[in-house]
Amino acid sequence: MALKTAFTELFGLKHPIALAPMALVAGGRLAAAVSDAGGLGLIGGGYGDPEWTEREIAAAGNSRYGVGFITWKLQENIRALELALAANPASIMLSFAEDAGIARRVSDAGVPLIWQVQSVEQARFARDHGAAVIVAQGSEAGGHGAARATLPLVPAVVDAVAPIPVLAAGGIADGRGLAAALMLGAAGILAGSRFYASAEALSHPAAKQKLVAASGDHTLRSSVFDRLRRIDWPRPYDIRTLANPVLARWDADPDGLSGVIDAEIAAFETARDSGDFDHAAVIAGEAADLINDAPPAGELVARMAAEAEAALARPPGLLGN
Amino acid sequence: MALKTAFTELFGLKHPIALAPMALVAGGRLAAAVSDAGGLGLIGGGYGDPEWTEREIAAAGNSRYGVGFITWKLQENIRALELALAANPASIMLSFAEDAGIARRVSDAGVPLIWQVQSVEQARFARDHGAAVIVAQGSEAGGHGAARATLPLVPAVVDAVAPIPVLAAGGIADGRGLAAALMLGAAGILAGSRFYASAEALSHPAAKQKLVAASGDHTLRSSVFDRLRRIDWPRPYDIRTLANPVLARWDADPDGLSGVIDAEIAAFETARDSGDFDHAAVIAGEAADLINDAPPAGELVARMAAEAEAALARPPGLLGN
Repeated sequence: MALKTAFTELFGLKHPIALAPMALVAGGRLAAAVSDAGGLGLIGGGYGDPEWTEREIAAAGNSRYGVGFITWKLQENIRALELALAANPASIMLSFAEDAGIARRVSDAGVPLIWQVQSVEQARFARDHGAAVIVAQGSEAGGHGAARATLPLVPAVVDAVAPIPVLAAGGIADGRGLAAALMLGAAGILAGSRFYASAEALSHPAAKQKLVAASGDHTLRSSVFDRLRRIDWPRPYDIRTLANPVLARWDADPDGLSGVIDAEIAAFETARDSGDFDHAAVIAGEAADLINDAPPAGELVARMAAEAEAALARPPGLLGN
Repeated sequence: MALKTAFTELFGLKHPIALAPMALVAGGRLAAAVSDAGGLGLIGGGYGDPEWTEREIAAAGNSRYGVGFITWKLQENIRALELALAANPASIMLSFAEDAGIARRVSDAGVPLIWQVQSVEQARFARDHGAAVIVAQGSEAGGHGAARATLPLVPAVVDAVAPIPVLAAGGIADGRGLAAALMLGAAGILAGSRFYASAEALSHPAAKQKLVAASGDHTLRSSVFDRLRRIDWPRPYDIRTLANPVLARWDADPDGLSGVIDAEIAAFETARDSGDFDHAAVIAGEAADLINDAPPAGELVARMAAEAEAALARPPGLLGN
């Protein structure tokens, strides 16, 4: 059995599973592992560092891959996008800003554009500006995102942009979530946190283990860690991570943080560089409860697909009468 | 075809659909309409007013129904629960506080206890204190709730409390959401906003029309409307409504509201009593995009079930190979 959707058809995939292009975490090896297993691997070109992007594209070797960017960073410097387009990627993914000009550059290059949105209104903009696939990302996602939740957002976006294929993102880490997304009308899913805890991810081994041990009850969406990383993210976007004492303290007192920001940045950098993830940021979504190991990414793709196929082949409780 | 689950078996239902016991909105007629259509109707005994509860129980006539309560209000006055238990309801539902003593009163009366939770930790408490069914409610729900989103919360709760049946609540307003919930491992769903816009709901006709016209992009979870209703809800609970100018202004300036609270309460009450829902509260979840009419509740039950059955009988993209 196989899950065949408009998304798998468009990219010639075996499974309707895409890797979220997590900045500095989804490198070439991880993207290659997801693609080689039959999904769509996306390198996290995120912060637009041309050297990082070039190196990780090389690390993907001969595997097919796409590259994902933070759109408002490309507005500051388009060079990383040009590098990625020159490498003839399977796709370019954009997220976090509505920029018709950057979208047109991708379309004009003949590369399928995957456009991630966080609201129905943004989805309509993406529909009208060349998106080949639209990702509807819910607030429960790890990393950057906005306010709306995946379960009601996905069918609303499906209705708004049909017949453009929609991927569900945020809160999905197993085959149950994939099967649910297909029932919502999605053509597949895009998963981040699940692959953050995989062998090939560039996340710190101690951070992976924190995620494996964590519950989704203990994550928080906040701007604190962006401030401590000196990244000036535009509203409404903030970043979901595991809760820890640093986050709890300053999320409750953002003005207080302003008064001691230099010292807190220094402490944060020390914690991060020494692998102290009781104080540094573990980027993680609310699906943390469902993440209990960190195997090779290819195993995760196969496992999620098999779970979803089994669930859909035998719908619970569907009886003739 | 029919959807048969542990939840439909427990209550002898035709469809795995429960009505959220919305305080002052889910009266006896609405609960009866849902039950008569094959779901489980729950009267919203919410704020614990014994007279309201008694009147609405009478309005349910000979239909089967349950009654749902806000647990922390019962801690102030248990009388409405006693009245409900005396009427031999199909179920009692509790939400918004962990109270083993009140749970035991329900269990000791031989009435199946439906326990709504907003986290995995709360689900374990409910499991250990007599819950017959556990509702995992996500933040996208209309009305009161907490922080976690439905899609990742449901499978985590299913894993934590098995074999107790779990209902998914929050963000579900059509058969796609019901089918998705079953894929997540839920035994059914509990829907509020969808039935807020139904013929039998006690919500104001103008409020129903606002919900029908609204997008899920424009709801907000806040404490402002509780303050304007003089209801002192305990943390972490707040209330999701449609956004409007009153909410936008004071949610951004809660301290400012304190300085003019009496005048704002008076203005709120005037707006509410005159049906001015540009300024009063329309209680609505993020599923608002999926709510485009306000028909009799029985039609909604049949429609959701038929949509889910059709989706599950023909899983999209599941092909032999």
